[in-house]
Amino acid sequence: MTSAPPTNKAGRPRANNDSRRSSLTSREQILDAAAALFAEAGFSGTSTRAIADRVGIRQQSLYYHFAGKDEILAELLSGSVRPSIEFVSDIEARVPGEISPAGALFALASMDARTLRNTPHNIGTLYLLPEIQDPRYDAFRNQRIALRAIYGRLGAAAAVADVRATVSEDRIGVLLIQLAEVVIQLRRDEESESADDDQTIAASCLRVLGLSAAQIGAARDEAGAVTAAALLAL
Amino acid sequence: MTSAPPTNKAGRPRANNDSRRSSLTSREQILDAAAALFAEAGFSGTSTRAIADRVGIRQQSLYYHFAGKDEILAELLSGSVRPSIEFVSDIEARVPGEISPAGALFALASMDARTLRNTPHNIGTLYLLPEIQDPRYDAFRNQRIALRAIYGRLGAAAAVADVRATVSEDRIGVLLIQLAEVVIQLRRDEESESADDDQTIAASCLRVLGLSAAQIGAARDEAGAVTAAALLAL
Repeated sequence: MTSAPPTNKAGRPRANNDSRRSSLTSREQILDAAAALFAEAGFSGTSTRAIADRVGIRQQSLYYHFAGKDEILAELLSGSVRPSIEFVSDIEARVPGEISPAGALFALASMDARTLRNTPHNIGTLYLLPEIQDPRYDAFRNQRIALRAIYGRLGAAAAVADVRATVSEDRIGVLLIQLAEVVIQLRRDEESESADDDQTIAASCLRVLGLSAAQIGAARDEAGAVTAAALLAL
Repeated sequence: MTSAPPTNKAGRPRANNDSRRSSLTSREQILDAAAALFAEAGFSGTSTRAIADRVGIRQQSLYYHFAGKDEILAELLSGSVRPSIEFVSDIEARVPGEISPAGALFALASMDARTLRNTPHNIGTLYLLPEIQDPRYDAFRNQRIALRAIYGRLGAAAAVADVRATVSEDRIGVLLIQLAEVVIQLRRDEESESADDDQTIAASCLRVLGLSAAQIGAARDEAGAVTAAALLAL
């Protein structure tokens, strides 16, 4: 599966299997092709040669963008958490004066679910690869730890007293990020996940913290405003 | 890392790196060694030769027990869900006459978390491997789908009206099994997870369904009785 599928678009020899790809930069095309191959054949079963073939470029041209497949994987992994961290950092600074912890958490969880829904070829399936414990993926692992810590802080601040008394901030962070990552499972199982799932996941995060339906509704409204502003700015 | 580490137990040439292993059958020793290697080097990076070396047996002897590493992985994966399905099948038959859906779900989630806490070398990290989409792992995938369906049925029956009206039974199953599988993340991150986490996870499953602290406490008490009986029978 290393050669490009036939295309009937005349004059576009590099375009291969979808119209989206033709609007990507070379760097993005490499990331997209690599993610597809990692998902199909596994990380260890994929060579930089196969990635270059899939994009329709020479292997040497790939090395102009990335030192090797490790660097490609590192970038794909970071790309699956960075948008959520950047989005929520702004918002967390406005808690609790302008937005409640529950509102900020709803916004984070739905944006994070959205990010995972849009990663190329469901790259989150690689989060548990043994290779990722290697120091070369420190940046990604630290970003994910940072994201989990934000979930923990916002979650502990939003939780009802009973939950705060029985579940540590650290465990709250672990549970909430796990709920957001259900998107990875839905995509893996080829369920037709949608933006509705982002809302269900965000609501589930607040329910786990003991919030009532009315409190969740209020948080959703708060989140809607900040999320719409952020999406417009993208 | 394919040779057995040095041992100073005279007369036990096959014993290698822990006292637990010496009480395992040959078949169990192979499963344990394979799980350790899959976790360290990945599935594709592990050969049956390396597994045999780790156990301290000849490769031919390994083939007496398993046709190959695929069959070993299939057995490890099935072993991570089978105990939970067997445990809950008995209990689900007693719902709602003898035990409430919430009690049964608390029992399932805490038992499932316990099972995942005890799988050799955290085999759940392999759930997302691309290889597992192959038909040879149909049995495992079908078991996992069956387990998710039980979570869905019990969850939908236990949920408050607001949740039942907004989240489908299928999505409830996906969210609840995802919460149980947080154990895989805790083990991967080398958090010191314990039986307390099993209870936290089970309580979180009920909170996601909108249950109150009092209802969760009642479900925990119901679950405690059936779980203790099942553990005694092990």
